[in-house]
Amino acid sequence: MTAQTARVHERLVNGVAVDKLYATIDAIKEDPEIAKFNFRITNQWINGGHNHTTVKDFYGAKQTHKHVKPFELDADEPPLLLGEDKGANPVEHLLNALVSCVTSSIVYHGAATGIEIKGIQSRVEGDLDLRGFLGISKTVPVGYQEIRLFFKIDADITDEEKEDLIDLGKKYSPVFNTVFANKTSVVALLDKE
Amino acid sequence: MTAQTARVHERLVNGVAVDKLYATIDAIKEDPEIAKFNFRITNQWINGGHNHTTVKDFYGAKQTHKHVKPFELDADEPPLLLGEDKGANPVEHLLNALVSCVTSSIVYHGAATGIEIKGIQSRVEGDLDLRGFLGISKTVPVGYQEIRLFFKIDADITDEEKEDLIDLGKKYSPVFNTVFANKTSVVALLDKE
Repeated sequence: MTAQTARVHERLVNGVAVDKLYATIDAIKEDPEIAKFNFRITNQWINGGHNHTTVKDFYGAKQTHKHVKPFELDADEPPLLLGEDKGANPVEHLLNALVSCVTSSIVYHGAATGIEIKGIQSRVEGDLDLRGFLGISKTVPVGYQEIRLFFKIDADITDEEKEDLIDLGKKYSPVFNTVFANKTSVVALLDKE
Repeated sequence: MTAQTARVHERLVNGVAVDKLYATIDAIKEDPEIAKFNFRITNQWINGGHNHTTVKDFYGAKQTHKHVKPFELDADEPPLLLGEDKGANPVEHLLNALVSCVTSSIVYHGAATGIEIKGIQSRVEGDLDLRGFLGISKTVPVGYQEIRLFFKIDADITDEEKEDLIDLGKKYSPVFNTVFANKTSVVALLDKE
């Protein structure tokens, strides 16, 4: 049987192979070690506000896995912020991480609960006062003051059910929880190797 | 005078036009409205774990600015997590946002304090237990348990001064503070427009 024909027999909901999803959950219940993941990236400063990230592999299900190809990401600042606009800036990258994660969480948890989703479009915005970054004010937060996510969901369910789906998306999104649940510890060290 | 010759007269430290940086600080002290920025992105779900972000413009210094071109970012999950690996996954994007921001903060604040940096290389990793995302355990955090950033800095300063520079980078990084200072509020709503 080829991969192509195997694929035909997969039960896909929202593009997610739900039987595999349930099999994964069962396997993890048997052996929680499978659930322990380590994600990692490397970054190289180029010049000014421009730096470059490479994402090659990750650890999970007891082994290291290579991505199909290394993913390359550029960050820079626009000219107004003294950069050369070679890529989205870090705070824009953060909005992307946030919305992509909540979206996938909506899609996967929708699939797991049998909700067929036809489309999701979203916009995200955040307010940032540069006086924080520039050290001009000690009372202005350095980070975003508020982040707002707005989701349009196309599915044959009520608005209330769509709102429940967004809540489910937030509840189970690793990025959303890293940013807003305040349970993540952090270490930033000089690498003397 | 052409842009090229104007450029020659800019005093660059770490690729940052420090005179412009100080002029910006002075302008903001005069009129804090200049410091109010709004960053925004849009996202389109494609299929399964794959979704696509577009970054076009932002608001700051009292007007909307277009990026030199729209930046396009893809997020997906690897096959192990039931995706097709069309891009870094959301939690990898988060590590990128974090390290790109701390790096730029090191570079800009280094420039402002006259520290010439020849190179920065970093690696970042985070531990994530999938039992949170899958709703298998109520005690396992949904987000990263710990994130670790390691910086190699090439500059003619002592290791202690490099450590101070990393601390400065963390202190003034908007992404670092959004994730770890716990001062950002969030709203996620159904867009009924």
